[in-house]
Amino acid sequence: MSEGQHRHRIAVVGASGYAGAELARLLVRHPFVRLTALGADSAAGKAPEELYPALRGLGLPAFARLDAAAIAAAADLAFLALPHTESLKMAPGLLDAGLKVVDLSGDFRLQDSGDYEAFYRHAHDQPALLKRAVYGLTEIHGAAVAGASFVSNPGCYTTTAILALYPLLKVGLLRPEGIIIDAKSGVSGAGRKLAQSGQFCEVDANFSAYRVAGTHQHIPEIEQELSAAAGRPLTVTFTPHLLPLNRGIFATCYGTPAEGADEARLQACVADFYRGRPFVRALKGADMPSLRSVVGTNLCEIAVRLDARAGRVVVFSVTDNLIKGAAGQAVQNMNLMLGLPETAGLDLSALPV
Amino acid sequence: MSEGQHRHRIAVVGASGYAGAELARLLVRHPFVRLTALGADSAAGKAPEELYPALRGLGLPAFARLDAAAIAAAADLAFLALPHTESLKMAPGLLDAGLKVVDLSGDFRLQDSGDYEAFYRHAHDQPALLKRAVYGLTEIHGAAVAGASFVSNPGCYTTTAILALYPLLKVGLLRPEGIIIDAKSGVSGAGRKLAQSGQFCEVDANFSAYRVAGTHQHIPEIEQELSAAAGRPLTVTFTPHLLPLNRGIFATCYGTPAEGADEARLQACVADFYRGRPFVRALKGADMPSLRSVVGTNLCEIAVRLDARAGRVVVFSVTDNLIKGAAGQAVQNMNLMLGLPETAGLDLSALPV
Amino acid sequence: MSEGQHRHRIAVVGASGYAGAELARLLVRHPFVRLTALGADSAAGKAPEELYPALRGLGLPAFARLDAAAIAAAADLAFLALPHTESLKMAPGLLDAGLKVVDLSGDFRLQDSGDYEAFYRHAHDQPALLKRAVYGLTEIHGAAVAGASFVSNPGCYTTTAILALYPLLKVGLLRPEGIIIDAKSGVSGAGRKLAQSGQFCEVDANFSAYRVAGTHQHIPEIEQELSAAAGRPLTVTFTPHLLPLNRGIFATCYGTPAEGADEARLQACVADFYRGRPFVRALKGADMPSLRSVVGTNLCEIAVRLDARAGRVVVFSVTDNLIKGAAGQAVQNMNLMLGLPETAGLDLSALPV
Amino acid sequence: MSEGQHRHRIAVVGASGYAGAELARLLVRHPFVRLTALGADSAAGKAPEELYPALRGLGLPAFARLDAAAIAAAADLAFLALPHTESLKMAPGLLDAGLKVVDLSGDFRLQDSGDYEAFYRHAHDQPALLKRAVYGLTEIHGAAVAGASFVSNPGCYTTTAILALYPLLKVGLLRPEGIIIDAKSGVSGAGRKLAQSGQFCEVDANFSAYRVAGTHQHIPEIEQELSAAAGRPLTVTFTPHLLPLNRGIFATCYGTPAEGADEARLQACVADFYRGRPFVRALKGADMPSLRSVVGTNLCEIAVRLDARAGRVVVFSVTDNLIKGAAGQAVQNMNLMLGLPETAGLDLSALPV
Repeated sequence: MSEGQHRHRIAVVGASGYAGAELARLLVRHPFVRLTALGADSAAGKAPEELYPALRGLGLPAFARLDAAAIAAAADLAFLALPHTESLKMAPGLLDAGLKVVDLSGDFRLQDSGDYEAFYRHAHDQPALLKRAVYGLTEIHGAAVAGASFVSNPGCYTTTAILALYPLLKVGLLRPEGIIIDAKSGVSGAGRKLAQSGQFCEVDANFSAYRVAGTHQHIPEIEQELSAAAGRPLTVTFTPHLLPLNRGIFATCYGTPAEGADEARLQACVADFYRGRPFVRALKGADMPSLRSVVGTNLCEIAVRLDARAGRVVVFSVTDNLIKGAAGQAVQNMNLMLGLPETAGLDLSALPV
Repeated sequence: MSEGQHRHRIAVVGASGYAGAELARLLVRHPFVRLTALGADSAAGKAPEELYPALRGLGLPAFARLDAAAIAAAADLAFLALPHTESLKMAPGLLDAGLKVVDLSGDFRLQDSGDYEAFYRHAHDQPALLKRAVYGLTEIHGAAVAGASFVSNPGCYTTTAILALYPLLKVGLLRPEGIIIDAKSGVSGAGRKLAQSGQFCEVDANFSAYRVAGTHQHIPEIEQELSAAAGRPLTVTFTPHLLPLNRGIFATCYGTPAEGADEARLQACVADFYRGRPFVRALKGADMPSLRSVVGTNLCEIAVRLDARAGRVVVFSVTDNLIKGAAGQAVQNMNLMLGLPETAGLDLSALPV
Repeated sequence: MSEGQHRHRIAVVGASGYAGAELARLLVRHPFVRLTALGADSAAGKAPEELYPALRGLGLPAFARLDAAAIAAAADLAFLALPHTESLKMAPGLLDAGLKVVDLSGDFRLQDSGDYEAFYRHAHDQPALLKRAVYGLTEIHGAAVAGASFVSNPGCYTTTAILALYPLLKVGLLRPEGIIIDAKSGVSGAGRKLAQSGQFCEVDANFSAYRVAGTHQHIPEIEQELSAAAGRPLTVTFTPHLLPLNRGIFATCYGTPAEGADEARLQACVADFYRGRPFVRALKGADMPSLRSVVGTNLCEIAVRLDARAGRVVVFSVTDNLIKGAAGQAVQNMNLMLGLPETAGLDLSALPV
Repeated sequence: MSEGQHRHRIAVVGASGYAGAELARLLVRHPFVRLTALGADSAAGKAPEELYPALRGLGLPAFARLDAAAIAAAADLAFLALPHTESLKMAPGLLDAGLKVVDLSGDFRLQDSGDYEAFYRHAHDQPALLKRAVYGLTEIHGAAVAGASFVSNPGCYTTTAILALYPLLKVGLLRPEGIIIDAKSGVSGAGRKLAQSGQFCEVDANFSAYRVAGTHQHIPEIEQELSAAAGRPLTVTFTPHLLPLNRGIFATCYGTPAEGADEARLQACVADFYRGRPFVRALKGADMPSLRSVVGTNLCEIAVRLDARAGRVVVFSVTDNLIKGAAGQAVQNMNLMLGLPETAGLDLSALPV
């Protein structure tokens, strides 16, 4: 596309957070869109590089305090990278103004607003929009995303866990009862907001679990999608842990194999499901994923193994929580919504060392 | 005990590895024993500080190439911190010479030598000694340890996992079927031997699983002890992972609660079991363990939680893999074997930051 | 000293910060004193383990809001680990009440109150106390400390740099002109106060310089002591950098050798100066210090090398910034002030791995 | 350039090391060249992803054992990423066969082969080629590089230090006497070769200096270029240190300002020198560089500050040692040698978090 041609105009609202900064980095280099506005109330007036020196030299717009009218004037599509509950307020106006919207918060992910109220401790006052939102786990709902004007982008843990388990449940090689997801995340998953628990001296050389015993807000989201895959309601045990590193989620998922599910069939199922999909890599044989082979990319790597001794399927899944788990998948969804190539702007590679 | 009094003479064989170096550090400061010899073939002639600058100034003996006769001449009790299969050769001579022995390898941990051959891929040629060895998980077998001349010190993963699950299985609050142990270890667990997988550039900012799908050699050891607790054979799923930090094991253990096992009863069971034990801390209520509160100490911290939604007990357990998981527990066992206070030489504290 | 005997009663004021927490850890295990009070306004009512899980089980008093009268009632000696300018207010009352005081802030370190005002940007309103304060770099001013009731404990950078350069300047082997100190510190040096610059995601895998070009408040403190050593005023270039690790300072100091200063004489000078001192280790020949051999201890390790090609002396010096650079040296000073053995409570060892 | 058009064929020899892997990653995505061969004797027959999982999915050729004839048959230009002394053997044959060559080793960087023999401890047996080699510090020797068939790519420390100091010496704002370069490097600078000093457990949470006192092999390279800038021979003090992170070099350079060199003039000098150069960013005012804003890119960021108190210029310079310090600059040189746009294949961005 030449410089002279029309490029879709894009705004990021909530651009001063980690997902917002990653969106800015990806969009400013995207070949088919033009990043026109970065909304960030708390950092209004600052250049992005004042918060993120790595963004120096990219020619980004300054952070600005933007209301819905200003966003609608500046953009054809807006990403909302706001704290939870803020999108409930911001999304309706933008959609009314005719913009397409990709919301990265948890506000429109749960079809059952009771779950939202239970896990986010906030009433859901946009039931009509909730129905309209398409859940943007691209590899699973890509067709719907392509026709949508409003996409709710999945969580980072949820993307990693659902991509791991969906094919096996769909095909019936994994039993829906008793699934356990033991997940480990880098610190950036908690966002940029100042917190004692995010201070270097508390995190470095440490490892801990948090929001244990069925309390993390990603649980209903995982159960919603995996129940759809299994064709009946299921409940998962989910334990998030904090790794002493910036980026990356590693999910170790445990389940019970269905009758006749040997390792070859399990691996083939996942490989078949994702065949031809550019951003999911089903590993073969004894190949195992690790964080460093996906960090910096929009990839998800998945390995399936059978522990025949104990009668247990173990699925390993890794992503970069800020890319496939947030900004990258959001751009992937935008590409489909705008009729662009799915991989545009996402041709990223991991550092070998 | 005054300088003039007799102190037990102690040797460490295999002293140049990480567990050996930690033993040297602990023993040279121990109030009631005297460290007389450090055996290390590959480093013979070197001062310990040449390999470990942190050992400078402690007045340690130089590493030496020591055969059984030399060890027997120098010591009343020997620690064997040798690679697996080496203790099979070294232990008999020392015991014949009348020494007490604490073996830190896996050579004498498994009562069923078939398991040894399956998981260590080496024939066990010391069946008589195997019967004589007392399994030195001190909090569980302390009475037998006190009367033993030959103690087999448990593995690091196994100590962390067994301490977590033993009380609940013993009392019947946890069902023996379907236990899953998702364990994360610091890099020192792999020892000092040079390996590409231990290079900084491969480990830093990374996270991965290894020896997955029922292949890790600590599995039969865990099953042996937990089966004894449950009163019948059980099988566990165990997945080890590698953390980008030096020291510490964090085990997240999943199981099914028995009828009527609410969170209060689960927590009380563990607290009761370890009441008065100096090195196991059962956490209360919502308190959670983290690596940094035990690293540098001989402590194990345990928290039990019930995920009532999913019907799952989750037990979190942490240790320093080189102390409670190796050298510290070995000293604890030595203390009992020599009639010394259990905590002697183990009055260690963690750094608050 | 038996339990029945009198133990000096000790309070820590400002105990919720990193230096305060380290003081609490050291003092509660000190054989000859009794820790009676932990003052911390912002954390009043909390147990220390709520902020520092590593302090669990040590039997520490709870944090409390304590005024001078309460401290005077509870203690014979108080450590002030308060933010700069707070000690100006707190110290006078405690000294009037007859307590001995060790102040860890910068408030009483600079004999020239003009320097204080220039670098701390605050007026000094306690000129009389300033004269009374003994500068507690123990290896240099130990005799004065032993007779003092009010000791001003040095900064962490300053301790590391002064110990490195003092002997060579004193003896005249180093010329006083053109000294450069390139210093690198772990993150704990910045304290516990929440700051974006201390967030894990900003520090990890990063390295940067700060307060460059002659602006850091430790500069006049270093110059004051080194000028005294040289016998005439000198000026230094000092650049602090931030390392991605919790604890430790590494100072690389550059200077010009005096006529005839070969490497052997330089090394002998430092070794002679610190001979018999328990906490400074002058390394020999090509031995070099590293952070990990002093972290967790009250040690300073120093190596002196001559770059004959370039005509430059390079002195390498390392400490644990929270121990020899703060709490440990404060306890060392307390020991002298109370007539206790200098090493009491400071028998700490570094982890070999 | 369409698929059908001719693309320059490129080989990497010594492709299994860190610089080689980075070259493979950059070249396989380069728009105007075709990567045809990866030579690596020790890894011959393996896929690159077996050593570097992050290279999965890039479609790289397998590692192969390649002699000069095989390379000449496969490529128009070869990168040599071999250990020092190996390029002395390999380069002549390739150049004779008509290939262009970019050598990343130290074998052809020093015009004075006596320096080579003193610092690399190996005789230089290719004096004619040494004269022919163009020193590829692109921002300084770009014109010569463009016409060269044989380029010697600079070292990582040297690139970082020379870019920092060259403009100031050239213009005469910095005096050539007494320059000190205190440099800190990530671990990848030592290469992939197994070494105890590169093990995670030795490096993590640690910091140390090495090859101190004028012994590092990059010293004569730095002096060669800076002497040329100053117009007369100069000697530098250079101290390398090891940071606990994978990638990045941070050089803190100290010098004496010439008469009249105020901060504004110093900053303007550097900014003017690099104006319009795509890969060097001269920072303004109080802006300071940090590793994380260049890691993953071919950038060098430079800040100049004047410590007026001490009469000292301090120049801060950062690069990614594997990109601008090795593979990236090598590609930049290749671009010039082949008449391609200087930035082709180097449009890389740093991660904001």
